[in-house]
Amino acid sequence: MRGIFIVFEGGDGVGKSTQAELLTDWLIAQGRDVVRTFEPGDGPVNAQIRHILLSRSTENLAPRAEALLFAADKAQHVASVVEPALERGAVVVSDRYVDSTLAYQGAGRVLETGAVERINRWATGDLRPDLTVLLDLDHRAGLASAGDADRMESAGGDFHARVREGFLELAARDPAHYLVLPARDDRGAIAHAVRERVASLLVDPDAVGDGPDVSRRGVLGALFRAELSDPAATLEP
Amino acid sequence: MRGIFIVFEGGDGVGKSTQAELLTDWLIAQGRDVVRTFEPGDGPVNAQIRHILLSRSTENLAPRAEALLFAADKAQHVASVVEPALERGAVVVSDRYVDSTLAYQGAGRVLETGAVERINRWATGDLRPDLTVLLDLDHRAGLASAGDADRMESAGGDFHARVREGFLELAARDPAHYLVLPARDDRGAIAHAVRERVASLLVDPDAVGDGPDVSRRGVLGALFRAELSDPAATLEP
Repeated sequence: MRGIFIVFEGGDGVGKSTQAELLTDWLIAQGRDVVRTFEPGDGPVNAQIRHILLSRSTENLAPRAEALLFAADKAQHVASVVEPALERGAVVVSDRYVDSTLAYQGAGRVLETGAVERINRWATGDLRPDLTVLLDLDHRAGLASAGDADRMESAGGDFHARVREGFLELAARDPAHYLVLPARDDRGAIAHAVRERVASLLVDPDAVGDGPDVSRRGVLGALFRAELSDPAATLEP
Repeated sequence: MRGIFIVFEGGDGVGKSTQAELLTDWLIAQGRDVVRTFEPGDGPVNAQIRHILLSRSTENLAPRAEALLFAADKAQHVASVVEPALERGAVVVSDRYVDSTLAYQGAGRVLETGAVERINRWATGDLRPDLTVLLDLDHRAGLASAGDADRMESAGGDFHARVREGFLELAARDPAHYLVLPARDDRGAIAHAVRERVASLLVDPDAVGDGPDVSRRGVLGALFRAELSDPAATLEP
């Protein structure tokens, strides 16, 4: 049986890695084969790409080059880590995935978001998570709890507000595959909510949200495909 | 006045760098501002990308990751080297450009060539050379004169035959902007033919081939744009 792909998304300092760790521990206790991973940079090639992306010496990285490096990281990550694990039936728990790239690059930078999305869908062979947990936090509070200040994090408050909006818009586009939680909640409460949702996936990987969103899943999927094949959506330089 | 962009293309060992050097020397003797460059890898960020692409430790680089890294190299190269030089009116002489990526990745690898081309056109903002000099050589002879044997060159004879076909097909698509020369010709004779063609560009940057192809330029340009906005040409994963 094919595995399950779970992603934690959100801005810097919202607790993604803490929650990924709590979920991983719980899944292992359930006797599951779990692969915990992250983007960008998990793997030898990815570490080299991450080095270019995060290095302070690449302040002059061109926006399109940056977007393509993130897409290359994703392509390598999916091909070498995520897909092989899913094929052998493992649960993959990733700290960040395509949404981070779209929110940071598309909403935060100067590029046309449609082109950035199409490139990332191509990079990943359009692999979508079974569940994305979005830890939502006002960016100012998020920044306050983030330790380091690399290139991304020094880009200013407006940037982080747009990133947050980007995440929320992606979740709103396909609510059946998202669990949006306020990151300020108690970390035990968040972990409990995540486990409840994941438990239903473990029983039935095709299970999605239990609200009115369930019935919209097929429609949203069709919309997505229509969007991808929209003539106006072609990559215009 | 905007500068002129000249690219040398062809397989390994066909004499691209020799001819780029001879042309550069001649242009300097004409009093021209010349920027000689190459792909992949010219520039600090590009050198890091090139390292990933050519390192033997990246044997397991996923095809899409490889294509995206080449595109990232191009995006950075155009933004940081080529465009600034063209904007100040310089002649840019590059050893390889988009055609190499398309010929090596598209023709030689397993990826759908349309998607690879669209990503590279996006990466470069669709910047096209004023002239591409294709040094055409049967791949077996080309290999014989290539010194080193990096990952690309160890991919086998069939690969190199398909790369050669890829270059020739690109030249056939837009003959007005290509000068295809047999790489076995005397290097002085090749240099002379290149100088003659470049001299006409220096007088009139809009001058293109002097055969019946001239009249087709506008049509080809329009065809290209139609191709780029073709609904069927959207990036399908």
